[in-house]
Amino acid sequence: MEQSATGRLYGVGLGPGDPSLMTVRAVEVIAAADVIAYHSARHGRSIARSIAAAHLRADHIEEALVYPVTTESTDHPGGYRGALDDFYEEAAARLAAHLDAGRTVAVLAEGDPLFYGSYQHMHKRLAHRYPTEVIPGVTSVSAAAARLGEPLVEAEEVLTILPGTLPEEELAARLAATDSAVVMKLGRTFGKVRGALERAGRLDEARYVERATMKGERTGSLADVDPESVPYFSVAVLPSRVAPLTGGPKPASSEDPGRGEVVVVGTGPAGPLWLTPETRGALAAADDLVGYTTYVDRVPHRPGQRRHGSDNRVESERAEFALELAKRGRR
Amino acid sequence: MEQSATGRLYGVGLGPGDPSLMTVRAVEVIAAADVIAYHSARHGRSIARSIAAAHLRADHIEEALVYPVTTESTDHPGGYRGALDDFYEEAAARLAAHLDAGRTVAVLAEGDPLFYGSYQHMHKRLAHRYPTEVIPGVTSVSAAAARLGEPLVEAEEVLTILPGTLPEEELAARLAATDSAVVMKLGRTFGKVRGALERAGRLDEARYVERATMKGERTGSLADVDPESVPYFSVAVLPSRVAPLTGGPKPASSEDPGRGEVVVVGTGPAGPLWLTPETRGALAAADDLVGYTTYVDRVPHRPGQRRHGSDNRVESERAEFALELAKRGRR
Repeated sequence: MEQSATGRLYGVGLGPGDPSLMTVRAVEVIAAADVIAYHSARHGRSIARSIAAAHLRADHIEEALVYPVTTESTDHPGGYRGALDDFYEEAAARLAAHLDAGRTVAVLAEGDPLFYGSYQHMHKRLAHRYPTEVIPGVTSVSAAAARLGEPLVEAEEVLTILPGTLPEEELAARLAATDSAVVMKLGRTFGKVRGALERAGRLDEARYVERATMKGERTGSLADVDPESVPYFSVAVLPSRVAPLTGGPKPASSEDPGRGEVVVVGTGPAGPLWLTPETRGALAAADDLVGYTTYVDRVPHRPGQRRHGSDNRVESERAEFALELAKRGRR
Repeated sequence: MEQSATGRLYGVGLGPGDPSLMTVRAVEVIAAADVIAYHSARHGRSIARSIAAAHLRADHIEEALVYPVTTESTDHPGGYRGALDDFYEEAAARLAAHLDAGRTVAVLAEGDPLFYGSYQHMHKRLAHRYPTEVIPGVTSVSAAAARLGEPLVEAEEVLTILPGTLPEEELAARLAATDSAVVMKLGRTFGKVRGALERAGRLDEARYVERATMKGERTGSLADVDPESVPYFSVAVLPSRVAPLTGGPKPASSEDPGRGEVVVVGTGPAGPLWLTPETRGALAAADDLVGYTTYVDRVPHRPGQRRHGSDNRVESERAEFALELAKRGRR
């Protein structure tokens, strides 16, 4: 707000797509800025610009930062990475010229500016040189949960957010070990993400959200989605595992004699730091935990899960009890 | 929008605290609602109400949903859990009476309505019975990153969001295995969270944000925080590990002869599903990966990290090479 020789840089989160999900502050900052900058692909259409369109004026200076490449193939001697680095340097220099001239620059960012996304490359090159403020925004993670109408995380649950570009085995391990999850950057990665959900035993729970809050929005069960139809602006969601109290379907595994199962897990010699994702996933998915009290006590509490700790010397009774529970349909 | 016999339920995300971080849609929905509901502790002050205060009118019907207990001690025969369940049932019944009378009810939610938090308990009891819409909001996660001015996740990084109420060992394992992290629900859990960051080898990177975007905001290095001074409305942040390109400090471990280290990790017999959090953390923190190409290829790529795959039969050359790198200060 103070007068200074240089202008001020704003990273402005625009939310997931619906212009009414911009914050009041984002609207204010855009209205007061001299320069509006946004990234776009080579075709020149900027989703960020279209979200903010109602607030752009004829006297705004617009800086379109157009990516030189859209896939990983390029003629640049430094390859894809080198081409991008040059592009970011050049884009930052264009914004710096405005800031040096005392102009306020608002860089538009879909979702939240510091959560994946292009603004970060400008931030790293400019924020230490100019007064800078980041306006946080609603992420596609929150938007997807809202459009599904399903709780994302509750109580002691852990949420993992991960890009679909990771290797399939890596995705499977992360998905097995977490409670809730959102997988970003679908599109061409969809088949791999679906495979990872299947390997992690979580395909049935997985939900799909395409273009949340935007035109052409689609939601549904991920298992039903045609892989050929998936755009980049879509996410996979594993919602909260805490059972719905009323209304929703009862979890299939509880008290259903057709589905009982005993899973024997090794917890390793030294606690969670050496616990594998597969064991962690099995512990989280269980209805009942049966074991030596000292070990059972270390497993985080989970609503609806029953714990049966016992002495170290009653292994056969414990096994019998676990099999009895499984016969009654528990897992 | 259509006329219906019953009213409409809205879960309204208010953002992290600064009223200007409410979305345009949240402001609209509050203005148009007949009933404004909000949770509060027994002292009656509602942070949610205070964020929305400028938009409340004298003719709004206000429903304060006052928690009967604030700690885990209670006289209720069902204990803490039973007391809460009764409270949620009674609160939902109060809102249902308004909805049955055709009134629009807006339930105010700090941050995002489906991301931890109280609105979810109303949603689970009412959303299947009445037309319901959730307005997503800016989370304290995005607000904390914005106030720190540090990127949260970039490229192929994984973000883990977890509650400080988990056991310390569990926290340490989760923090070791992730790239970025935000730990919610600090306050009395702070000492444990600090201990877990230390055990995970990540205390030096950890940042602290108290009351992000609110009055009394405080940010800094987590290691410097006095545990006695930490309120519930604070979070711990492990920002993006992708090194700042310019401006920020260079990572201490690269090319610093005083700090080189060889870490020998076991990747297990079957890929990431059996990979321990400790190994995963060491792989992510390395400057150089040295090993059999087949295994090295499975580890996700990370900007700035160098990979040295080799044949399966050159173990001693490989070891020598790794020691040589460590002598030059690399990890």
